[in-house]
Amino acid sequence: MQSDIILLGHGSGGRLSHQLLDDLIIPILSGMDRSDQNDAAILDNVGERVAFTTDSYVVDPIFFPGGNIGDLAVNGTVNDLAMAGARPLAISVGLILEEGLPIAELREVLTAMKEAAEEAGVAIVTGDTKVVPRGKADKIFINTSGIGIFDHGLEIGGSGARPGDKVLINGTIGDHGMAVLARREGLELGSDIRTDSAPLATLVAEIIGAGGGAVHALRDPTRGGVATTIKEIALQSEAEITLFEEALPVSPAVAGACAILGLDPLYVANEGKLLAVVAPEAADAVLAAMRAHPAGREATLIGEVAESGEGRVLMRTAIGGMRAIEMLSGEQLPRIC
Amino acid sequence: MQSDIILLGHGSGGRLSHQLLDDLIIPILSGMDRSDQNDAAILDNVGERVAFTTDSYVVDPIFFPGGNIGDLAVNGTVNDLAMAGARPLAISVGLILEEGLPIAELREVLTAMKEAAEEAGVAIVTGDTKVVPRGKADKIFINTSGIGIFDHGLEIGGSGARPGDKVLINGTIGDHGMAVLARREGLELGSDIRTDSAPLATLVAEIIGAGGGAVHALRDPTRGGVATTIKEIALQSEAEITLFEEALPVSPAVAGACAILGLDPLYVANEGKLLAVVAPEAADAVLAAMRAHPAGREATLIGEVAESGEGRVLMRTAIGGMRAIEMLSGEQLPRIC
Repeated sequence: MQSDIILLGHGSGGRLSHQLLDDLIIPILSGMDRSDQNDAAILDNVGERVAFTTDSYVVDPIFFPGGNIGDLAVNGTVNDLAMAGARPLAISVGLILEEGLPIAELREVLTAMKEAAEEAGVAIVTGDTKVVPRGKADKIFINTSGIGIFDHGLEIGGSGARPGDKVLINGTIGDHGMAVLARREGLELGSDIRTDSAPLATLVAEIIGAGGGAVHALRDPTRGGVATTIKEIALQSEAEITLFEEALPVSPAVAGACAILGLDPLYVANEGKLLAVVAPEAADAVLAAMRAHPAGREATLIGEVAESGEGRVLMRTAIGGMRAIEMLSGEQLPRIC
Repeated sequence: MQSDIILLGHGSGGRLSHQLLDDLIIPILSGMDRSDQNDAAILDNVGERVAFTTDSYVVDPIFFPGGNIGDLAVNGTVNDLAMAGARPLAISVGLILEEGLPIAELREVLTAMKEAAEEAGVAIVTGDTKVVPRGKADKIFINTSGIGIFDHGLEIGGSGARPGDKVLINGTIGDHGMAVLARREGLELGSDIRTDSAPLATLVAEIIGAGGGAVHALRDPTRGGVATTIKEIALQSEAEITLFEEALPVSPAVAGACAILGLDPLYVANEGKLLAVVAPEAADAVLAAMRAHPAGREATLIGEVAESGEGRVLMRTAIGGMRAIEMLSGEQLPRIC
């Protein structure tokens, strides 16, 4: 790279854009040579049924304990495909860069994307880069879109929860949101907290392998946290779901930070967690499969589908009371992903 | 909508996010109901081979003569798929909104997206919305990613140009870039100039129908203009291409505005144009097919592939001289798409 920072010309589509691609982006992200540089990637052997998803990432700051916006963007889209029961095949990368962004920071973000894609077994196949003047964006925004294919005929989404189903989660809640918040605000108390950002596709494969058609719903509790995601499942499934307060796994560091800041970890974002709603007879087998996977060692049961309904979510408290759980109202933690 | 402007909470993932989706985005963009609101769309009957592309749009201003960022974003991704010879099937929409954006402007942009998708025959199947604080973005950035399928077995890209091939274009150059620039700078002289933003997939189908395997390369000359795109084709194809200066179609209004501003229309962005590189024996038939299509009435021959080479592009001038054409150097017109 002939410049240490991003210039407006890097977004021109012309010579500087090609230099950025040839000298930095393509060497890191892919094995493409110039003859492959078309505006669309061609994928073969896709199959008749595909999953398709998109997410933009605007997290602030772009570097935080345990990760950065790059691996977050790859894992997030990998996980959206996985929640549909799909095997992630290919992703696209759309970069919006602020003029003046240090090339060294871009290199670190791209390297994290490459490593995350390798870990998730997904190919980065196409991309786009735009540059906006200083003060018109904030360092870097990343869109990742993804295509997944199916190794099974199951239909999994957020609308399949049925009365009697068990609600499982693969580990502690609130780690990602509190890691980002602690770094952004310079909080000492958050020094032990790292993002949980991780790809969940192989964990989903184990869940489906163990539960098959008994896996009724999957969703990752990102923005809005477990509370909002459970509420979405309840509404989509027209069911009433009960959560067990004592069963919710929260690390001591996250619990402490949330207590001091007056935040409820149930509403804090996760980036390496999933909620699995499974038929009761399969719950033990699915839980065992989750615990045998590196991303699910602390998997546990946190609730159950009580009955059909209009989407109510109730929390059974430690002393046996019940209180209604609503979606996140307003903005608890802006720019968390 | 309970608010006239975008609030940070509209990006929370919680209640306000759902209101924005339910009250505005979904009613305009799709027929989805709540039970379909999963993080990934499922597409059936896709076939074994798909094209996949992504583009982010950061154009300034977001409204300009003949269109806005919404239809631009749909047409741009539709066209990237079409240039691969694919039929656009589905697109995703990733919105990054600046806090304070008037809901009325968002509504107008979304409506343009819906109408452009309908015109192009492509479905908007999945999306994502993020909100950043005032001053951290500029009104609205849109990422569209797309999936296309193939009705033929041809492989079309930017690397197929061969000696003797003819270079065709479907109409005048520079209209989009000058329309945006004139609006941005408040130039009176640009008052007659409108964007050429248009979907080109059906034009490509006509081109392939007429030329078949004689269609060696297709590309849309967006950022960097015809000069940069021709240079890309020459480099990818390892060929030398000659353009005929007198044959380049430029409207009088664009020519006049470019002359006053010292811009070369050859480097100005287009959003409804394509370059088709076809075998000489098929050039007449392809040109006739292009002219029979509404988006190709002014189609014309502008150059030819001279010989194999290392990617040189030459302009044969009106007086018979030759000069080298390079890619856009630096940034002629920032944020044009």
